[in-house]
Amino acid sequence: MKIEVFFSPSQIDDLFLRDKNVVVIDVLRASTTVITALNNGAREIIPVNTIESAVKVSGNLFGDVVLRGGERNGKMIEGFNLGNSPFEYTADAVKGKSIILCTSNGSPAMWKARYAKNLLITGFVNVSAVVERTKEIKDDIYILCAGKNTQFCMEDAVSAGMIIKQLMEDDQEFEFNDSAVAAHALYKNANRNLLKMARTSEHGKYLVEIGFGKDLEFCTGIDMFDVVPELVGNVLKLKKKSDVVVPPHAPISIDPAGGEGE
Amino acid sequence: MKIEVFFSPSQIDDLFLRDKNVVVIDVLRASTTVITALNNGAREIIPVNTIESAVKVSGNLFGDVVLRGGERNGKMIEGFNLGNSPFEYTADAVKGKSIILCTSNGSPAMWKARYAKNLLITGFVNVSAVVERTKEIKDDIYILCAGKNTQFCMEDAVSAGMIIKQLMEDDQEFEFNDSAVAAHALYKNANRNLLKMARTSEHGKYLVEIGFGKDLEFCTGIDMFDVVPELVGNVLKLKKKSDVVVPPHAPISIDPAGGEGE
Repeated sequence: MKIEVFFSPSQIDDLFLRDKNVVVIDVLRASTTVITALNNGAREIIPVNTIESAVKVSGNLFGDVVLRGGERNGKMIEGFNLGNSPFEYTADAVKGKSIILCTSNGSPAMWKARYAKNLLITGFVNVSAVVERTKEIKDDIYILCAGKNTQFCMEDAVSAGMIIKQLMEDDQEFEFNDSAVAAHALYKNANRNLLKMARTSEHGKYLVEIGFGKDLEFCTGIDMFDVVPELVGNVLKLKKKSDVVVPPHAPISIDPAGGEGE
Repeated sequence: MKIEVFFSPSQIDDLFLRDKNVVVIDVLRASTTVITALNNGAREIIPVNTIESAVKVSGNLFGDVVLRGGERNGKMIEGFNLGNSPFEYTADAVKGKSIILCTSNGSPAMWKARYAKNLLITGFVNVSAVVERTKEIKDDIYILCAGKNTQFCMEDAVSAGMIIKQLMEDDQEFEFNDSAVAAHALYKNANRNLLKMARTSEHGKYLVEIGFGKDLEFCTGIDMFDVVPELVGNVLKLKKKSDVVVPPHAPISIDPAGGEGE
């Protein structure tokens, strides 16, 4: 079984991912936000590549059940309903809604994998659920890290490494690319303190600076949710689980005010 | 002082590197080959981006002092004089020659950094000499890994990490990007057995397969040479040292037959 990691969507072509099993990671914060929103009862998430697409897509949908979420430079886009903090995606805010998501790196990475055979969304918050799902798939897995502006992001690599570590617990032969080997080594290097890793990462430091320090705690919470967002048609949904699942471990409380610095 | 690492030239634009201090790494094998060739008395190396450029450039130069070197899929290009194995670049073969170098990843990375203020070429074989030179520069350093076909390569990342480790021995404040932090961690993970790391890397395995296993031993030999190739105009030369420098440590013997598998 082949496991390949890509540290940035700029490393691969859209068609490379066609008909493959793809796991997309944007720990800080788009994938964590997607997982949280669907766990909290959002009907579906539509990841788009550009603000123009977000506006176009939402123009075709009914206003009261559609929300536009996302960010530029970490902050909510003008005219949008939600930013990109998982704390904003409470059950009150998202239950039953379709959410068009437009972020700088995460939603374009999801969009890039739109031709995948299976497209799963992961982060630390649902790592075990995703590992279980990839074991069901029993086929090669391609892990696409969103990175940041074509660059490597530590938190995405470490999250990829955690998936690999869990998959390796099974007695099976794997064929890794160099990035997968690196991700696994970086996970082993960081796993004792994921929050510290996030706080010292480039993007983590930026989020703290602009007042989203609490998001880092949330986004490094392991297995808070037992759900796996998957692409169905062109929307992300919970395919196999009920829309709202009780987290298996005590979750960090979701504070709608959110976004305060530390 | 800022130290940034880029795992692939695809992550950055040519103009980003303009007027910066850039260190290019392609451990397997172009940067090791450039260092070896200049150490063995080559007059200059002209890195080019494409085979077409190599042919065009060499057409303007005198045949008896110009050699064309390089590879596609690890093997010598038809009509060229040399491949990309450092074992081919003996004093007998290269002394006094201008060498046009065209490889799949290394020479395009060098070419990408052609607008740099200072462009240095490194690998394990001259790491300490390059670290010494970067200390003289006393400015931000951008380390560009050639990678392989836009992908991350372990051996280049570990080589970048070794530079960072040596720079960090000075009591100085550094500002790292996530890739630099990762490279340093990967070096610490691999440093006990660089040859094993190279042999288990994707490109290392491929080189062994096609009969260049001995190149891996050569390319992971630390500080075999005390020279730093630098860009002067549009050619790589030894700027500050004499053209032939006696290696400070016992070098691996250069066997012109080279290229045999293990």
